Amino acid sequence: MYKLNVISRALYGGRLYSESATQRKLPTKRLREKISVYLKVLGSPTIESKLIPYKENVRRATEQVEEAKRNNDSEAVKQTVDLLKNAKEQLQIKEYELMPENGFVDQLSLYDLLTNRFFFDRSFTSQPGLIDLGPAAVAIKNNIVNEWRRHFIKSDRMLEVECPSLTPAEVLKASGHVDRFTDFIVKDVKTNDTYRADHLIKEHLEALLKDKKLSREGKEKLEKNLSQVETLNADELHSVIEEFGLKSKNGNELSRPTPLNLMFAAQLGGQGENTAYLRPETSQGIFLNFRKLLAYNGQRLPLTVAQVGTVFRNEVSPKHNLFRLREFTLCEIEHFYTTSDDIRLKLDKLLDMEFTLWSAEDQEAEKSSRNYTVKGALENNVISNVIIAYYMIRSAIFLTKIGIDPQRLRFRQHRRQEMAHYANDCWDAEALTTVGWVELAGFSDRSSYDLKSLSQGLNIYLSISSEDLEYPKVVEPSFGIGRILQTVLEHSFRQRNPDSEPKNPYFAFPLTVAPILASIYPIVRDDKFNTYITDIEDQLKDADISFNVVDTRYSIGKRYIKADELGIPFGITVDDNTVNNGTVTIREITTMQQITVPVTKVGQTLSDLIKGRTSWDRLK
Amino acid sequence: MYKLNVISRALYGGRLYSESATQRKLPTKRLREKISVYLKVLGSPTIESKLIPYKENVRRATEQVEEAKRNNDSEAVKQTVDLLKNAKEQLQIKEYELMPENGFVDQLSLYDLLTNRFFFDRSFTSQPGLIDLGPAAVAIKNNIVNEWRRHFIKSDRMLEVECPSLTPAEVLKASGHVDRFTDFIVKDVKTNDTYRADHLIKEHLEALLKDKKLSREGKEKLEKNLSQVETLNADELHSVIEEFGLKSKNGNELSRPTPLNLMFAAQLGGQGENTAYLRPETSQGIFLNFRKLLAYNGQRLPLTVAQVGTVFRNEVSPKHNLFRLREFTLCEIEHFYTTSDDIRLKLDKLLDMEFTLWSAEDQEAEKSSRNYTVKGALENNVISNVIIAYYMIRSAIFLTKIGIDPQRLRFRQHRRQEMAHYANDCWDAEALTTVGWVELAGFSDRSSYDLKSLSQGLNIYLSISSEDLEYPKVVEPSFGIGRILQTVLEHSFRQRNPDSEPKNPYFAFPLTVAPILASIYPIVRDDKFNTYITDIEDQLKDADISFNVVDTRYSIGKRYIKADELGIPFGITVDDNTVNNGTVTIREITTMQQITVPVTKVGQTLSDLIKGRTSWDRLK
Repeated sequence: MYKLNVISRALYGGRLYSESATQRKLPTKRLREKISVYLKVLGSPTIESKLIPYKENVRRATEQVEEAKRNNDSEAVKQTVDLLKNAKEQLQIKEYELMPENGFVDQLSLYDLLTNRFFFDRSFTSQPGLIDLGPAAVAIKNNIVNEWRRHFIKSDRMLEVECPSLTPAEVLKASGHVDRFTDFIVKDVKTNDTYRADHLIKEHLEALLKDKKLSREGKEKLEKNLSQVETLNADELHSVIEEFGLKSKNGNELSRPTPLNLMFAAQLGGQGENTAYLRPETSQGIFLNFRKLLAYNGQRLPLTVAQVGTVFRNEVSPKHNLFRLREFTLCEIEHFYTTSDDIRLKLDKLLDMEFTLWSAEDQEAEKSSRNYTVKGALENNVISNVIIAYYMIRSAIFLTKIGIDPQRLRFRQHRRQEMAHYANDCWDAEALTTVGWVELAGFSDRSSYDLKSLSQGLNIYLSISSEDLEYPKVVEPSFGIGRILQTVLEHSFRQRNPDSEPKNPYFAFPLTVAPILASIYPIVRDDKFNTYITDIEDQLKDADISFNVVDTRYSIGKRYIKADELGIPFGITVDDNTVNNGTVTIREITTMQQITVPVTKVGQTLSDLIKGRTSWDRLK
Repeated sequence: MYKLNVISRALYGGRLYSESATQRKLPTKRLREKISVYLKVLGSPTIESKLIPYKENVRRATEQVEEAKRNNDSEAVKQTVDLLKNAKEQLQIKEYELMPENGFVDQLSLYDLLTNRFFFDRSFTSQPGLIDLGPAAVAIKNNIVNEWRRHFIKSDRMLEVECPSLTPAEVLKASGHVDRFTDFIVKDVKTNDTYRADHLIKEHLEALLKDKKLSREGKEKLEKNLSQVETLNADELHSVIEEFGLKSKNGNELSRPTPLNLMFAAQLGGQGENTAYLRPETSQGIFLNFRKLLAYNGQRLPLTVAQVGTVFRNEVSPKHNLFRLREFTLCEIEHFYTTSDDIRLKLDKLLDMEFTLWSAEDQEAEKSSRNYTVKGALENNVISNVIIAYYMIRSAIFLTKIGIDPQRLRFRQHRRQEMAHYANDCWDAEALTTVGWVELAGFSDRSSYDLKSLSQGLNIYLSISSEDLEYPKVVEPSFGIGRILQTVLEHSFRQRNPDSEPKNPYFAFPLTVAPILASIYPIVRDDKFNTYITDIEDQLKDADISFNVVDTRYSIGKRYIKADELGIPFGITVDDNTVNNGTVTIREITTMQQITVPVTKVGQTLSDLIKGRTSWDRLK
């Protein structure tokens, strides 16, 4: 992960994304257990490798205890139990030492803040699956989308298109979505309440797992079922429901699982003469324009097309704010190709970059994820498609740039049975969040599925003649912007006083995504400051730096706290020194340190920081 | 219009948006007549004022002919007819002289080009009302939206929100949309074909108007009916249909007009338990968040909130590409206020700016539009609301900046009977296009309608208590981005050889909206150019200048022609001089002139041009 961390450090203006917590107080037992669970879920190959000897000691001590018990040697039992206790403590202390500093997110405090400062809130008071983004979150989202366009579209000179959400039924029939874009639901046979079958099973099994008296075999069985639940078909879901005797939340019998299509239907035209659906993904618009885009591209492959757009999915149980919505923004790329020569050339510069991969094979063998260089992943055939490897590492760089913690980022390969109907191979970029690992982006090898099925179903649209026997293949990277936004908020969240009140929360956003880059503070209300404020405003406008001017209702300290809550990285204070000496102070959010600069240099200084021409460390 | 023209000139790099055509060849009779019609439709106050003496001469000569006829004085008839003929010719020559140079748009040639280079095309082959934007148009659209955000949101530090399209029915019931967001349709009583009543009447009356034998009274009656058709209610539409004996396109009787709601319905949830509509405007999301936004704003008014989003309208007869779509992007602002003091301060700097206004009173009195300074419009009470005046002039500046010809831009006030159900006063920014005057933006004084009606219908959402007796008022500027995009394409379209083939079309886009700013051309295929190309690429990336590299399949001349068709303003040619002397040529699209610059200065030179630190005139 070295290089991603370097990116991360550079973007945070030289501040270190600390990796250990050696300086903290000794932990309570409860905290040590919490850390154990966290590290198990995190499954970081770097941390796990450092824990191996400690875990080995625990394993060996456990064996010794068991042997002593078998031998009924009470003295040896006493000794080995002490040994085991000691080994466990050593492991926990090591775990504590290796615990990533910002790994624990104070979920309650964060989501209170997000609501209080209107980052986002449920739309229409409480309509499930629909979210309103407030001013700070819209600004961050726009910055993320702009950075996405810069990082992918501009840098690789992709073609961007924009197609409507309303899509005629025959298109989504031909693409397979009408028949196969479904979730399985079960109904309470008495009340008719609807549940998503996999969610119901998951909740039930997770509740069972909390039983302390559970046998090891029982636990393993539950864990195995849990890991597969999303991949089961209707009959398999039904078997699990029968086996564990699942009931509805009202305690009633459940119907057999049936598929429910996730698309919203709409009627087009004055008489509703055409059935359409709101698109559940943006890619069909790209495929249908394939011929026109190929012509635009001078009839040459590779052809790389991107689309940023809203998609709609009638989720049965939307939840976790932006993590599962009924309407959200997707950023998608379709890379059409017959050879990967051009990508190999670009990949040459990235071969030594590292990322964390969790292959289908390792998942099935119940092994952890591992760190690979791009080169290693290709040579060992962990990633078989060089184009998928290219977009995965490029995405790791992108996600790190915008504030996703590389230590909480992994790429997980889909197992055969969980693959979408159009995919040949598929990897998800996943981030560890307060609700567990969440998919932020998908990388699927769609081969020539789409062009073939659309052209067979819709020859008229694509006007591909029967002579076109060879179709180009397609790799599709696809990014869920809402999920990325919420993860950036979680991974950037900090508290100055995590253990007391007020906790003084702030966000350590990368400068590229911060909602507003600077606040201007007149120290008190006085007209003599006006010309300086106007001067600074003009400098910031010229440098295209977003800012606000904060009135003097509150003390300067209170105003800093409020700016911290929005994650505004810089505060420019205009005071008597400005009038007397022509200087202002600039305060930086993560260090709370201040520097003094001439009022005439404010725009230049911030511009240099933002463009990376200097760093806060060098200035302070 | 002086100042808007100055903006226009500055943006086009010092090139003059020519206002007259004195150098052109003498026109044919047909062209002179075409010009007369064009200028009548344009109704430019500047041009009309210059034509007054010529029109007066025609009027006087006509009277003299009539008098001579009444006197049966054949000699005088002959003399005065000659006089009249001469007066008419003088008028037409003056009209020809005053005809704006780029006023006539070669519609066929433009729309051929837009299709051939995939600026846009009908989605799904021919689904009415849905459009796919291709790469060049998406880039231009993104530039327009970015400029809108800079010009309005950033500059006035508005709060931006993002709300979903899916909106519960009760919200749109409370806002009045379920009952009143309708068009009147009529049906062919035999075939059941559906027509929009106003469109059917309009087409019929326009056809009747072409009858050369029509009496003056008949003509005036038709024109009066035509001007009112969009404002009629069901009974009035029925009367007109009866009066003119309108039939369906199949010649059958028509049903009485009935209202058809323009919103698309969708069912939310696993069992479709909630009826929702796709929003037809973005403003409800802002109103519903009023309390939260007011809190975010420190409980202070004015509060100015913006939203950029997709809206949906089930138009009965979508047409004219992006001018009337079923799904399009709106950029809306809600300005909540109790006083206009802050706006008056900002407006102070804009009081001498001019715009063209067509008041309801002038429309009803069948008078032309007039030019006003902002000051004049307010003093004469043509615009009664100072906040509307502020947004109108700011919008005139914005529209001019992005490439709308200020000579083809006017602001038309709604007459009482055409006002939307929520509006107190309303003005449209309209542009003259190939299909006539098209509304690009609306400015409506919604008073406190929305907050009142939503809080009465939806107290739970807004949580406005009964003590809140005073509601702030609202002014809403609203921009249709698709229409603006298509108008920019029309107003920027040029032909190097309008009278012969090939016409060599190009676009004179302002640099802020051009889809790609520069093309890099190796003169021929040769690896020796690679390092120079990479160097230039790096410079352009650093300066955040969009570019492409054009392969050598075609001659350099052919490549220039293809870049002209996309409106790429600058072409950088790398040739033997680059290798020998370290220089490249830069070609500018409108002048086709080239300058030679050191290869090391390419990024700096283009950056200076784009930021307005220099102009092409100064460089060449």
